[in-house]
Amino acid sequence: MERIEQHASFGGRQEVWQHDSATLGCKMRLAVYLPPAALAGQRCPVLYWLSGLTCNEQNFITKAGAQQHAARHQLILVAPDTSPRGEGVANDPAYDLGQGAGFYVNATQEPWAPHYRMQDYVAAELPALVEQHFPASDRRGIFGHSMGGHGALVTALRHPGRYCSVSAFSPIVAPSQVPWGQKALAAYLGDEPSGWQDWDTVELIGRATEKLPLLVDQGEADEFLATQLRPELLEAACERAGHPLTLRRQPGYDHSYYFIASFLAEHFEHHVHALRA
Amino acid sequence: MERIEQHASFGGRQEVWQHDSATLGCKMRLAVYLPPAALAGQRCPVLYWLSGLTCNEQNFITKAGAQQHAARHQLILVAPDTSPRGEGVANDPAYDLGQGAGFYVNATQEPWAPHYRMQDYVAAELPALVEQHFPASDRRGIFGHSMGGHGALVTALRHPGRYCSVSAFSPIVAPSQVPWGQKALAAYLGDEPSGWQDWDTVELIGRATEKLPLLVDQGEADEFLATQLRPELLEAACERAGHPLTLRRQPGYDHSYYFIASFLAEHFEHHVHALRA
Repeated sequence: MERIEQHASFGGRQEVWQHDSATLGCKMRLAVYLPPAALAGQRCPVLYWLSGLTCNEQNFITKAGAQQHAARHQLILVAPDTSPRGEGVANDPAYDLGQGAGFYVNATQEPWAPHYRMQDYVAAELPALVEQHFPASDRRGIFGHSMGGHGALVTALRHPGRYCSVSAFSPIVAPSQVPWGQKALAAYLGDEPSGWQDWDTVELIGRATEKLPLLVDQGEADEFLATQLRPELLEAACERAGHPLTLRRQPGYDHSYYFIASFLAEHFEHHVHALRA
Repeated sequence: MERIEQHASFGGRQEVWQHDSATLGCKMRLAVYLPPAALAGQRCPVLYWLSGLTCNEQNFITKAGAQQHAARHQLILVAPDTSPRGEGVANDPAYDLGQGAGFYVNATQEPWAPHYRMQDYVAAELPALVEQHFPASDRRGIFGHSMGGHGALVTALRHPGRYCSVSAFSPIVAPSQVPWGQKALAAYLGDEPSGWQDWDTVELIGRATEKLPLLVDQGEADEFLATQLRPELLEAACERAGHPLTLRRQPGYDHSYYFIASFLAEHFEHHVHALRA
């Protein structure tokens, strides 16, 4: 673990670290915000943020205005990169496949399988690393945006008991049924859609044993709403399964960080409620 | 005036506009945040933000987390670019001269004189434009960062009565005495330092008739503190002139937007106090 960036922020410290990931077989960067209590050595709960397509560890920490909330609630904030990176790592010229577009799955297909194991990275290696290197408790929440909203929901649903809370902004809730997801899941997991069900929130909700309440915000002026996001599929799945969902459609809001920043305080409230319970 | 970007944000709207500037002789972009009251047609006071070296109209609106404060206080926020731009506009390969580095002066020297009239743009054309096109009152505040902190202080001091309030983050308070300022002022205004005095906060404070109270935040871990910023020169000038100054040295903070975001709420309080008086 090597620290490559640090900035005082709201009485705490925004840091960026680099480490050799055993899971992904490459160097990975992660952003870590330490609130004042963590700097004073107290163990704090950890909230993991998963970013969307084309992002790396920087987008959330520079654009969301999240540090003020983490400081107020004394939470550690961790934002990893969205895929493995580097010259030896498979890639694709499109923005929605390869580096910057890991979709938080464990790939089984060539050329992706050797490095693209973002699910194992996010759900196992990352929390172990964070809980070893920082004053972090084992109380974990997870949230994210778009591809990262999908990542947060899928990761929480696949690991009952590992997260106390989950929420999402404009998530891809049914990757099996929309173009972004179909392209990525076919590439990473193979052409057979039956293999995609374990990576699809709408499918996973139907068999969830743990009923973690979901908070989802979705902008109604989001350009990807009807083609890629389709929150009505999540709404129907939760209703069928009796899974608690608060889905808020926000009139006029788009897919940008301006949207995320506007409702971030309420996502922190949602997580803190569970993390401090 | 052509709107080229708009995003819902904290119940208001973040917009970016482009217009042909008569003062600068080129197309200019400006960011305008309209709080909820302005969208409802109420006239609101306007707070102008001037950015630092290398910035354009985007940096402040994407990184500072300012919209939440503007929404809460019902202020219009305006962030112009930091220089004239375009192919026909003089430039320099260095980051601290030419495009992105206008220093908010009116240049008298070639090749800069034809376009580099940022002081006239910021103090006259910009407010006239804003007050014509948006539901803006004529109550104005001005603030900025680094080169833009210099710009805010100089602009307010050169125009008594035009601004109700002024503040700055890590401003260049004495450009005549530091390398950034000496290079830029020599290029834009000529080699004779006596011509620089009208563009130097520490000089202007000595002859200010209007005693607008100054709020200045300065990070103590700022890498430019001792060479370029030198807040002790402002402190001494204000003490000599009996000019009200609140200078806050913030331990551990650097020159970044993480610093600005951390103390922005208090700058809004400072401005609102005067703008609503």
